[in-house]
Amino acid sequence: MHSFPQHLLDGHANFMSGRYSRERDRYRDLASAGQTPTTLMIACCDSRAAPEMIFDAGPGEMFVLRNVANLVPTYQPDGGQHGTSAAIEFAIKGLNIANIVVMGHGRCGGIKAALDPAMKPLDSGDFIGKWMSMLGELPSQLGQNDLLTASERQTAMERISIRNSIRNLRTFPYVAALEQEGQLAIHGAWFDISSGELWVMDESGDFIRPAL
Amino acid sequence: MHSFPQHLLDGHANFMSGRYSRERDRYRDLASAGQTPTTLMIACCDSRAAPEMIFDAGPGEMFVLRNVANLVPTYQPDGGQHGTSAAIEFAIKGLNIANIVVMGHGRCGGIKAALDPAMKPLDSGDFIGKWMSMLGELPSQLGQNDLLTASERQTAMERISIRNSIRNLRTFPYVAALEQEGQLAIHGAWFDISSGELWVMDESGDFIRPAL
Amino acid sequence: MHSFPQHLLDGHANFMSGRYSRERDRYRDLASAGQTPTTLMIACCDSRAAPEMIFDAGPGEMFVLRNVANLVPTYQPDGGQHGTSAAIEFAIKGLNIANIVVMGHGRCGGIKAALDPAMKPLDSGDFIGKWMSMLGELPSQLGQNDLLTASERQTAMERISIRNSIRNLRTFPYVAALEQEGQLAIHGAWFDISSGELWVMDESGDFIRPAL
Amino acid sequence: MHSFPQHLLDGHANFMSGRYSRERDRYRDLASAGQTPTTLMIACCDSRAAPEMIFDAGPGEMFVLRNVANLVPTYQPDGGQHGTSAAIEFAIKGLNIANIVVMGHGRCGGIKAALDPAMKPLDSGDFIGKWMSMLGELPSQLGQNDLLTASERQTAMERISIRNSIRNLRTFPYVAALEQEGQLAIHGAWFDISSGELWVMDESGDFIRPAL
Repeated sequence: MHSFPQHLLDGHANFMSGRYSRERDRYRDLASAGQTPTTLMIACCDSRAAPEMIFDAGPGEMFVLRNVANLVPTYQPDGGQHGTSAAIEFAIKGLNIANIVVMGHGRCGGIKAALDPAMKPLDSGDFIGKWMSMLGELPSQLGQNDLLTASERQTAMERISIRNSIRNLRTFPYVAALEQEGQLAIHGAWFDISSGELWVMDESGDFIRPAL
Repeated sequence: MHSFPQHLLDGHANFMSGRYSRERDRYRDLASAGQTPTTLMIACCDSRAAPEMIFDAGPGEMFVLRNVANLVPTYQPDGGQHGTSAAIEFAIKGLNIANIVVMGHGRCGGIKAALDPAMKPLDSGDFIGKWMSMLGELPSQLGQNDLLTASERQTAMERISIRNSIRNLRTFPYVAALEQEGQLAIHGAWFDISSGELWVMDESGDFIRPAL
Repeated sequence: MHSFPQHLLDGHANFMSGRYSRERDRYRDLASAGQTPTTLMIACCDSRAAPEMIFDAGPGEMFVLRNVANLVPTYQPDGGQHGTSAAIEFAIKGLNIANIVVMGHGRCGGIKAALDPAMKPLDSGDFIGKWMSMLGELPSQLGQNDLLTASERQTAMERISIRNSIRNLRTFPYVAALEQEGQLAIHGAWFDISSGELWVMDESGDFIRPAL
Repeated sequence: MHSFPQHLLDGHANFMSGRYSRERDRYRDLASAGQTPTTLMIACCDSRAAPEMIFDAGPGEMFVLRNVANLVPTYQPDGGQHGTSAAIEFAIKGLNIANIVVMGHGRCGGIKAALDPAMKPLDSGDFIGKWMSMLGELPSQLGQNDLLTASERQTAMERISIRNSIRNLRTFPYVAALEQEGQLAIHGAWFDISSGELWVMDESGDFIRPAL
């Protein structure tokens, strides 16, 4: 085992002299009183789309689940080890969060893989292929004709996938119940890595830039 | 559907005028050239332990998988939809990352649930219980005797779990192969929310505070 | 016949005391020397998308063709009275313009009509339906499934139509020849009425906001 | 494909910081509520005679059809793709506009071509010749004698053509019906590029400068 990467140790030293130093009391309170985040953020692993950066969030604000392509499966109480569903259950049942945000982003590698019919599995396990198969027929329904450019198709699929994840979220009985009771709000968002812009989903499912 | 939370929009406005404004070129380059993170960070969803904060990391530096209690399953190419394995495959096979860090933290709710024999499922789906069952017999092997205080037992289990996740990581054939070839390094880390300190795992599996 | 609308007369009085007063010499020169615009702008009749406003253009700068949905037919030298083709011929052959811009816009009524399979002709002449049939199978190829919201489908079709018009432009022999000789450049643009933003087509056919 | 002309991007930047900035709410309202222009303006493509400039019109005020020489064909529901008729149908049937203005202008290149018996087609398609043939025998009826100077003949033909277009407009059944019911008013106008003056058609068909 190699020694711990020096640039990560340097980064942590910056944290100690910077944010931690300024927010020492907040960290101590969060440690002793426990976390009470109000938002469950379901985001992608992508290194360019960290939710805490994008929303300038401080410690304790967001409970953040990150998987490849920010996917949510349907409610499947079948005894399997569903990591995403466990995080959702923890956030809703254990932390009583008030908002769920499914945040996708541009140039998503997982979505790109899902759209590529010629994509070969990267491994015999083919975990990515299996994981992205959660989108079912959606990628093929979008079609491979040349009406849309590759980039347009990618963006469309990223947004279709967010709507699909939100639909799947509502198959969780407690999510649906709390939303109907007005105690839980579900949101969609899409982050443009290049421009830094955030597009949010409106009630019709469209993604718009919020008015300033 | 409620309108998008204002505090998140405000946070994004801070991002735009702050970090994005300062690092516009970096974001644009990352968008056009694609991501090339060197580290796969496997961390917890906990709102108090965001890796990018703890390591003062910028955009593009870390590919971040976050699930409840930063668990890694064993390699199971059984056709199931394994989100964590998909992220590992993506990071290793798709991004050629050089370091994997499994980072746990103090006061972890998932570990606490795994240790509590009286814990009732929060839901009939019991996704948390199933998810934490990945630890197998480890929690009961640690014992419920009075030798350790509740706090000591919790910290011990958090560290045992990190070692267990690292062991599971090595069941992925390509992880083991790359590590043996010296092209991939695997690390453990544990974050103390209260003090802000980072403890890193040494070659014997112990967690120590790195010398400054 | 009613008297000429007073608000138009008032508007012209503003013109006389405003722009004309400031640019009297320019108008006189343009009258005596003739027009030498460098751009043929093919735009929509929509009242919200006047090219001269959007590009802050002065007198003499743009030769502006406006029809419903900024469509360009293919080259059809069949003796019919093709108004759009006449304007293209005039701009290229008569004025030697150097740039053609096909500019679409959001919320285009013509595109909306083309996408609506239940749309009834507004008149027995059904000029709109016949005109929009220039898009051929493109609207039906885009599909009526629920993957895309109505708004997303509309935007996609607006952009597909711009690419189609550009393709049709290149069926004019002199357009194709001049472009190959590097004496004529063809561009696509899409105007967002709500945000005021201009999206321009890049070499892959995608619409992007130009970097500032 | 060349990059988008910089002077157009600069013009758009002026628009954003100028008119759009001042009229942001108006643009947003027009986007969300849709357009409700009260005037259909039928004008020429000429770069020196932009209706929005001449009438100092804001966004949403005029639905503007622009073709070579502001011609209107007769009502021909023959299944052809009549762009001008489609725009008229859209304005009347779809937008219920209250006024139609046919605006010609001095030094019109299309009219000049129609008057020149020695004019050779600019292209084998000869779209301009075919298009201007909509004037039928009018140019030759005006005669080539020496009674009128070239300039007088040109101005006369520009005005004859406006009267002809208005006559053709009334062959559209709904135009004629709405005008008789007093719900639609049809106007003629002629713009003098050099002096900036607007001449409007009175009930006898004469063009006069309106009293201020």
